Amino acid sequence: MRLSQFHLATVKEVPADAEIASHQLMLRAGMIRKLASGLYTWSPLGLRVLRKVENIVREEMDRAGAIEMLMPSVQPKELWEETGRWEKFGGQLLKIKDRKGQEFCYGPTHEEVVTDFARNELKSYKQLPVNFYQIQTKFRDEIRPRFGVMRAREFLMKDAYSFHLTQESLAETYAAMYQAYSRIFTRLGLTFRAVQADTGAIGGNASHEFQVLADSGEDAIVFSDGSDYAANIEKAEALAPTAQRPAPAAALQQVDTPTQKTIDDIASFLKVSPQQCVKTLLVRGRDGLVALCLRGDHEINAVKAGKLAELPDESVLASEEEIRAATGTRPGFIGPVGLPASIPVIVDRDAAVLADFVCGGNVDGTHCTGANWERDARITRIADLRNVVEGDLSPDGKGVLHLARGIEVGHVFQLGTKYAETLGATVVDESGKPQVMTMGCYGIGVSRIVAAAIEQRHDEAGILWPEAMAPWRVVVCVINPKNVPAVSAAAEALYQALGQRGIEALLDDRGVRAGSMFADMELIGIPHRVVVSERGLAAGTLEYRAREDSESRPLSEDELFALLG
Amino acid sequence: MRLSQFHLATVKEVPADAEIASHQLMLRAGMIRKLASGLYTWSPLGLRVLRKVENIVREEMDRAGAIEMLMPSVQPKELWEETGRWEKFGGQLLKIKDRKGQEFCYGPTHEEVVTDFARNELKSYKQLPVNFYQIQTKFRDEIRPRFGVMRAREFLMKDAYSFHLTQESLAETYAAMYQAYSRIFTRLGLTFRAVQADTGAIGGNASHEFQVLADSGEDAIVFSDGSDYAANIEKAEALAPTAQRPAPAAALQQVDTPTQKTIDDIASFLKVSPQQCVKTLLVRGRDGLVALCLRGDHEINAVKAGKLAELPDESVLASEEEIRAATGTRPGFIGPVGLPASIPVIVDRDAAVLADFVCGGNVDGTHCTGANWERDARITRIADLRNVVEGDLSPDGKGVLHLARGIEVGHVFQLGTKYAETLGATVVDESGKPQVMTMGCYGIGVSRIVAAAIEQRHDEAGILWPEAMAPWRVVVCVINPKNVPAVSAAAEALYQALGQRGIEALLDDRGVRAGSMFADMELIGIPHRVVVSERGLAAGTLEYRAREDSESRPLSEDELFALLG
Repeated sequence: MRLSQFHLATVKEVPADAEIASHQLMLRAGMIRKLASGLYTWSPLGLRVLRKVENIVREEMDRAGAIEMLMPSVQPKELWEETGRWEKFGGQLLKIKDRKGQEFCYGPTHEEVVTDFARNELKSYKQLPVNFYQIQTKFRDEIRPRFGVMRAREFLMKDAYSFHLTQESLAETYAAMYQAYSRIFTRLGLTFRAVQADTGAIGGNASHEFQVLADSGEDAIVFSDGSDYAANIEKAEALAPTAQRPAPAAALQQVDTPTQKTIDDIASFLKVSPQQCVKTLLVRGRDGLVALCLRGDHEINAVKAGKLAELPDESVLASEEEIRAATGTRPGFIGPVGLPASIPVIVDRDAAVLADFVCGGNVDGTHCTGANWERDARITRIADLRNVVEGDLSPDGKGVLHLARGIEVGHVFQLGTKYAETLGATVVDESGKPQVMTMGCYGIGVSRIVAAAIEQRHDEAGILWPEAMAPWRVVVCVINPKNVPAVSAAAEALYQALGQRGIEALLDDRGVRAGSMFADMELIGIPHRVVVSERGLAAGTLEYRAREDSESRPLSEDELFALLG
Repeated sequence: MRLSQFHLATVKEVPADAEIASHQLMLRAGMIRKLASGLYTWSPLGLRVLRKVENIVREEMDRAGAIEMLMPSVQPKELWEETGRWEKFGGQLLKIKDRKGQEFCYGPTHEEVVTDFARNELKSYKQLPVNFYQIQTKFRDEIRPRFGVMRAREFLMKDAYSFHLTQESLAETYAAMYQAYSRIFTRLGLTFRAVQADTGAIGGNASHEFQVLADSGEDAIVFSDGSDYAANIEKAEALAPTAQRPAPAAALQQVDTPTQKTIDDIASFLKVSPQQCVKTLLVRGRDGLVALCLRGDHEINAVKAGKLAELPDESVLASEEEIRAATGTRPGFIGPVGLPASIPVIVDRDAAVLADFVCGGNVDGTHCTGANWERDARITRIADLRNVVEGDLSPDGKGVLHLARGIEVGHVFQLGTKYAETLGATVVDESGKPQVMTMGCYGIGVSRIVAAAIEQRHDEAGILWPEAMAPWRVVVCVINPKNVPAVSAAAEALYQALGQRGIEALLDDRGVRAGSMFADMELIGIPHRVVVSERGLAAGTLEYRAREDSESRPLSEDELFALLG
């Protein structure tokens, strides 16, 4: 592509409302432009990158035997009512009324539509297994769209849905998709981890997320240094401590802690470690308040809490008024000692082995010291409630856990029969009897990958594209083309020669100053740069610089071709 | 592709609600499935064809220098209010409210969004001309969606928008797009005509439609046999008759025509030709009723009528009550003789040269004979009001006109400054002064092309794809593969050999009966079929049949490769 015939519009200023690097750099590179909250136009430059991702996703889905199709983006309410998700999906579902008053939504996902397609198209076990996919625009009406295309409302997604007669068949396709995803992210040149994920409210048997590692990632993931264990922190089990609870040694005492409310405050005031404290959260249970007790240095894991029989899937902290009414005190001073008998006390495994601990006194401005389970405080049940921390033992018993941040770009899921059962999607089996199909679903956030790659790979000057995602692999920069025809001709010849070798090249023939040209090319992240200048022509060399290099170096044309292979 | 690993689901029955061949065949071939009114899922088979069209469109747009981008499908109301189209666009605009109550529409077209993009991105004449395009899902809330994807609500469209400093530059890009469109439809293998089109309410300077010829087409187009003149009938001028109006010879008489209301009734009752009758339409003008008079054998042209100063863009016939109140009679008996002076009488050029004509008597159950303009009936104005008919002289003076039916699949349009002016999209010119940009727009109905091709090319057995649109060029049919391993092996080898030669082949390895296999392949329209059978193996030949042929014939493998070249 000759840049004079393309549309490039870079921006110098860092846009005020862009909080993360990828959002800033995509705006500055002119890859995207905001149309409205969570709605972005992909400029020609941005679309080139998006299409590269899309094509790799498509190739690997095809290679794995998935079959591409295309479902409407607008979906009728009736189907969503059949699965109960018209209400359950919540505010993210963009609802639409047509001119006749009939209701639809802009599809945020396609389980309903594809299962409806399958119940009409698939009649016999002979048609199974089959794995349908599409690459299509989706809409989720995020309450707070942010971070550019990382969390946009309208976005491009690859979603696949597989149909099976048996769980074994599902497991096979699931494994094939897992492999395909690994190939996709490897080909894209991204550092990623496949991690075990919680199956959440959807249920099902197994689920993995594909996480692009980046410090700015919203997800916390953990992995073992002694095995291939890796999980989203939501899912990672904290092993039970091997130590037994010591016998009580201290007497229970109430101490004044007039202004100390946080664990750190208390620990330093009482000169104990946070590990010797118990913190207590009061949350709304299915049937009244529930107390959750953790060691002072640990954090509650909301997903684990959501799996307790006493709690709803998404538990909410009790309000100050509720706490006051139930305990007579306020947040910061709650503790398990002397809680009303109506409140179940669920204790994390690590908190349950403490003795002589510090906890809230259930009276404003007081804490207890020398507290002991059973003697001073009830335990209704012991459970795994906490997030794992750096250095915890790996749940598979091999190695210790390390934490990292990730951006979720893919998710594979063994759905089971949930949707097929509800929508009556059956096939006849070998004996002629109808059987509900078993399903898997497999998503990739195509547009999100573009932002995730930038989060992982950028520097002060701009984006560092992996070669497979770069808008062009190499740019030929022409210095002063209008004044020196020989330079212009040499650059054009080099550009043609690269094209003939199948190397995707950009010719920067805009005739702008070298400094501004180089800055643009670094900002938009072209992996390789060669400069054709009068001086270079005289010396018979090209000036080459890889995007990551700090210095350029002379190369002959043949060396350049060899390098770009 | 091995068909056993694809998803094909053909249907024997002709679906009840499918009125036209393409809709019936797409459903029977399993290319599309209806999700709701005007919403269709593209099955894997259908999508293969859609993508072939999409790719050819993309290649030719790129070749013509257009630059691909991607705009959101969801567009904010504010932009549409800036151009006034939030109201003016009418019921086809699918309006959406998000969770915060802000209003959007599902884009039916992108003039607003692209002009907003341009006013932010384009600052200088140096960035012009530029031609942006996208291939994207659009939504028009048709009041009566019908004919499958021919008139669906959600559909795939290629839309391009060019920006210029001058009209000359626009004309150049317009010509380039015209050429690109011609190449696209030629490559697709369709019989088409580019015809002059009315520029309608949008105004602008020039417009051409690309029409795929098919008897079922909704558009009437005309073309000359003596030149390259071709136009939509809406646009085609009816030349003024060369004959002068004869002097009156007959006296005006009122005759009873108690039950004769149509022109044919009257003409046969009074034993005159319809050409000797004048029919009168009363329509609602901008300022009261207006009478339009045409020769009895001619039809009103609504677009021409809409251009009269007295009429709105879309004129509506007066109601029976309005007619009764204005003339004292009812439809069927209206005529120009004795109409109230407040009603302008606009007469078509061919009706204006009649003398001694028959017309309605403005009294229930009567007509006039021997009527003459000026003597008996006012003429407010003479105008071209009628549709041209077969045999009319071509407006360019060369040859006579012939009529055909067409399906509009493309439209190129010189928009001028309308949108850029309203939205304030300016660039600075060479002298540093801001100038409103001049725009062109260029649309192709990508999904509609698939249906149009079928309308043009089908037979009793199914679809007759042009090679460029076929899901596969050739199918290798295997007879009895399970029982005769040699047949299966030979078919597999042939399939591989075709693939190695870059010939896109389908291997029908389903093991179904020959009759049902052949019927499927004819229905889905594969251009070439080769059969591998035990008998053929023994004879050392393949049994070849082109989709259009009535008989198959033996071919050697080399002859097959040569034929598929």
